[in-house]
Amino acid sequence: MKIGIFGSGVVGNTLGTKFTELGHEVKMGSRTASNDKAAAWVGSAGSKASQGTFADAAAFGEILFNCTSGAVSLPALEAAGAKNLAGKILVDVSNPLDFSKGMPPSLTVCNTDSTGEQIQRAFPNVKVVKALNTLTSALMVNPGALAGEHDLFICGNDDGAKGRVTEILREWLGWKNIVDVGDITAARGTEGLMLLWIRLYGKLQTPHFNWHITR
Amino acid sequence: MKIGIFGSGVVGNTLGTKFTELGHEVKMGSRTASNDKAAAWVGSAGSKASQGTFADAAAFGEILFNCTSGAVSLPALEAAGAKNLAGKILVDVSNPLDFSKGMPPSLTVCNTDSTGEQIQRAFPNVKVVKALNTLTSALMVNPGALAGEHDLFICGNDDGAKGRVTEILREWLGWKNIVDVGDITAARGTEGLMLLWIRLYGKLQTPHFNWHITR
Repeated sequence: MKIGIFGSGVVGNTLGTKFTELGHEVKMGSRTASNDKAAAWVGSAGSKASQGTFADAAAFGEILFNCTSGAVSLPALEAAGAKNLAGKILVDVSNPLDFSKGMPPSLTVCNTDSTGEQIQRAFPNVKVVKALNTLTSALMVNPGALAGEHDLFICGNDDGAKGRVTEILREWLGWKNIVDVGDITAARGTEGLMLLWIRLYGKLQTPHFNWHITR
Repeated sequence: MKIGIFGSGVVGNTLGTKFTELGHEVKMGSRTASNDKAAAWVGSAGSKASQGTFADAAAFGEILFNCTSGAVSLPALEAAGAKNLAGKILVDVSNPLDFSKGMPPSLTVCNTDSTGEQIQRAFPNVKVVKALNTLTSALMVNPGALAGEHDLFICGNDDGAKGRVTEILREWLGWKNIVDVGDITAARGTEGLMLLWIRLYGKLQTPHFNWHITR
């Protein structure tokens, strides 16, 4: 399958590498076609990996992953272009972290809005599925690295898109417990987890943990 | 031990009942000394239970539990009186839920502030420990009702107060997994959990679930 990834940071890198290992073709999009970090990733990830602009990655992908920082996701997706995005599933992995006021970061948007909703409003023809934004990237692609049960939260307005993303999360990444928490407004809740995630990271001195809903 | 509880809703009722069952003396404080809900609770909870104003409960308690709604906690505590609160541990169980904009509720304060911080700022001599605000009241007093592992998050500025509250949570209520997430500013994170808790409640159709951090 052809996959477009927006963002050349550790999240895009980790997901892109996993997808190429599974035999998929991945194009990593950045602000410039020759982004150094994307080039380094292409150099390491083998023949299935390529790079380009945000618009190149959007046009290339049958499914798209937004791995940019939430604070810059909208400009990145505008650069990708509504026409290139239209009708596609966009898995939004971003969090609206705001480091401008020091540590720990706050969120640029939360409570009554979310990055997921901002993206869905800006691109109504895109099937935005918020997922994978509630844990560290190494665990996104290797949930079995934690011994106990743990959960992934997804939300979005399009049930078909959520179903397809759920299949991908199960079959490609090995996720067992996927909790659909509703429409895209539920991203207020899943992005809001960052406010505690950051504190737990500081206290536990490791990002290798995840949420589980015990019933 | 003498315990003051602010608020006569289901949370104050549930905690108050448990504490009287354990043999402690509990005074439930309300805006008026003759509050009907508090009177009904006193009638059902036996000879260890009494009621009064917020100020009466504050003066009575060696330890205090804020079980009012977060949106009205500050006026309730002002009515309780700084002199009656001074030097005491206040376990803040509140969440700043705002139902004024319809369902699901948003929060009156979050991200860069929290009810826990507001209370600590307003009453600098009080040892505010945020705890028990991340799950439904029936589970607060009966964590064993869920079969799997699950966690309670606490935070606050005073390590001694957190230690005492941790003992109470363990010995009186049976909590095993108590995660100290830092100073009172971490209440932004634990109160922020409500944004997802509410969605989970809607999806799971039960409030009988809790968070677990899988490591």
